[in-house]
Amino acid sequence: MKFEYYNPTRLIFAAGALARLGEVASQHGKRALLVTGGGSVKRSGVFDRAVASLKLAGVSTVECSGVEPNPRITTVRRGARIARDEGCDVIIALGGGSTMDAAKVMAAAFYYDGDPWDMIYHGQPKPYVPTRALPVITVPTLAATGSEMNMGSVISNEETKEKSFVQAKCLYPVIALVDPELTMSVPQDQTAYGICDIITHVTEGYFNGVDGTPIQDRFAEGVILTAMEYGLKALEDGTNLDARAQVQWASIVALNGWVNAGTNGGFPVHMIEHTLSAYHDITHGAGLSVVNPAWMRFAARHRPEKFVQFAQRIFGLKGKGPDDLACAMEGIDRFEGFLRSTGCDPPVRAEDWGRAYDTICQ
Amino acid sequence: MKFEYYNPTRLIFAAGALARLGEVASQHGKRALLVTGGGSVKRSGVFDRAVASLKLAGVSTVECSGVEPNPRITTVRRGARIARDEGCDVIIALGGGSTMDAAKVMAAAFYYDGDPWDMIYHGQPKPYVPTRALPVITVPTLAATGSEMNMGSVISNEETKEKSFVQAKCLYPVIALVDPELTMSVPQDQTAYGICDIITHVTEGYFNGVDGTPIQDRFAEGVILTAMEYGLKALEDGTNLDARAQVQWASIVALNGWVNAGTNGGFPVHMIEHTLSAYHDITHGAGLSVVNPAWMRFAARHRPEKFVQFAQRIFGLKGKGPDDLACAMEGIDRFEGFLRSTGCDPPVRAEDWGRAYDTICQ
Repeated sequence: MKFEYYNPTRLIFAAGALARLGEVASQHGKRALLVTGGGSVKRSGVFDRAVASLKLAGVSTVECSGVEPNPRITTVRRGARIARDEGCDVIIALGGGSTMDAAKVMAAAFYYDGDPWDMIYHGQPKPYVPTRALPVITVPTLAATGSEMNMGSVISNEETKEKSFVQAKCLYPVIALVDPELTMSVPQDQTAYGICDIITHVTEGYFNGVDGTPIQDRFAEGVILTAMEYGLKALEDGTNLDARAQVQWASIVALNGWVNAGTNGGFPVHMIEHTLSAYHDITHGAGLSVVNPAWMRFAARHRPEKFVQFAQRIFGLKGKGPDDLACAMEGIDRFEGFLRSTGCDPPVRAEDWGRAYDTICQ
Repeated sequence: MKFEYYNPTRLIFAAGALARLGEVASQHGKRALLVTGGGSVKRSGVFDRAVASLKLAGVSTVECSGVEPNPRITTVRRGARIARDEGCDVIIALGGGSTMDAAKVMAAAFYYDGDPWDMIYHGQPKPYVPTRALPVITVPTLAATGSEMNMGSVISNEETKEKSFVQAKCLYPVIALVDPELTMSVPQDQTAYGICDIITHVTEGYFNGVDGTPIQDRFAEGVILTAMEYGLKALEDGTNLDARAQVQWASIVALNGWVNAGTNGGFPVHMIEHTLSAYHDITHGAGLSVVNPAWMRFAARHRPEKFVQFAQRIFGLKGKGPDDLACAMEGIDRFEGFLRSTGCDPPVRAEDWGRAYDTICQ
């Protein structure tokens, strides 16, 4: 194990925490750019409550709405322009992962005279890594990407059909204000995709990381077991606040560095899915639900011991030894069965998925 | 679950990381106060290697040696005076938990005109909570207290026979430079006490925290299982670098906020032990090895379900239900048996411990 870890985001986690938005935002700015998605925060009243809390604390607001499910670089450019034109000094993301990701890059683009697409790694020899950004406060309304407490962002370029990422220290939110009550109105399909996203964040490090990470393995298994148990409860009753809170907490720890620190693995499943959704514009978690089990079946043949451990510790299967591929495959079947039980049916044309699936499994 | 979490310490974890001390220290200062303990870092050559690395990076040093196993406020006063007199701008703790704890309070005392004992909570109506401190870099040579990556410090007052703590944001080390190679020369008894300390840090939140923390429970169990498995390996062969690394990593995550976030529990076992060692000046982990099982037997009767879970998940026992006190007690017996197997025999007079034990168990 050899690694570095750093995460300075202050996390405030509590049902009802939205009421504190004004108080915490006023510690960082006087004029906020409120970044939002497709309108659900308006319909649910969350937007009005946020604005009221900010107003009460003396923080004025200007809005950048309409961030897409796969947030586009054109939207990032638009948001950064609004922030500059309106003299914003803090950015508040009120929404799901796409909203938070877009807000982070807007915050860095505020100080960058070039095109923000320069920051997103897309094969250019030397991406521009931002070193300065407006303070960002994340207020997630969906448990999925973990973007609320990390320094990553994934942005799509609709013109070039590219979807890729940026990671930079200045992109850590100053505050993650996490109110699990806000996720209670998330519909079943998005809840299910979120659960798949959470689990995939930790399976990446679990299966792709270096050997000899027993604590990280246990942490990852803890996230998976909890996301499965409470995910099903949240799907059964979306107003189950405890279930929503546990899934939200799982989403945070799955990708804030705690579980993957020292695993030093890549994110192949995410990379494959990003490519697919750059073309098909599907929900990230839905794509992962197809890609991850397929990738696991491929990878298990090369590293069966990790998949046997997964089968044993997650599903209680009895393996005959670290090379018991049948046990490994049974664990993957069970995992895919779990995903299907949540309703993770990819919402795209079957022939598209057939081709994608065939390509991955060849 | 309702909580806040914040930890801005940058962690560098690698075998051989000591060689980077100069490089990272030079980012924070030009003249370092090197805080050390009883001389083992001199005998092992670690001190000379640290000074050489600092010199190479242009960081001059002045030393405050002789920090006691239970660090004393007199030593804190002495260190702060040296730092002021010598114009230090960074403090480096090179040693175990006591060295790191003393260094933190010296760093805050540097800016405080009053007596640093004001900062240590000892029943005064309003302790002085420091808001400013010199940057501290921790370089642990022992896996135990987790002080390398948290904002806590425990200090003793030999005159008043008090041992208590301070917690303040300004006490977070700027960098934890963790090189598990440095723990390879730790003798067996101190290794064993460290393992007990690590496990007790997570059992505090596990048994005393609020209900409904499934992820934290799994994280705690992961730390316990890993500390037990790799702790025994480190005891068997102190030069087993992988075992030392896993135990070191366990010590960090046990008390950097990751496992206890949201459990919102007290630290009764630590509080009892602090009182005992304030009088008997014994090693903290040795005291915990007596207090923790005794306390667990007391607490199990009031909250059996958590102890049944512990027995099941740590020792694989079969419980008949959440109220199966026999199963809970069997788990505690097994745990105490594990501690004894590590050699955690309290190095104090038997009659003292007898009295203490009797008091706790009444």
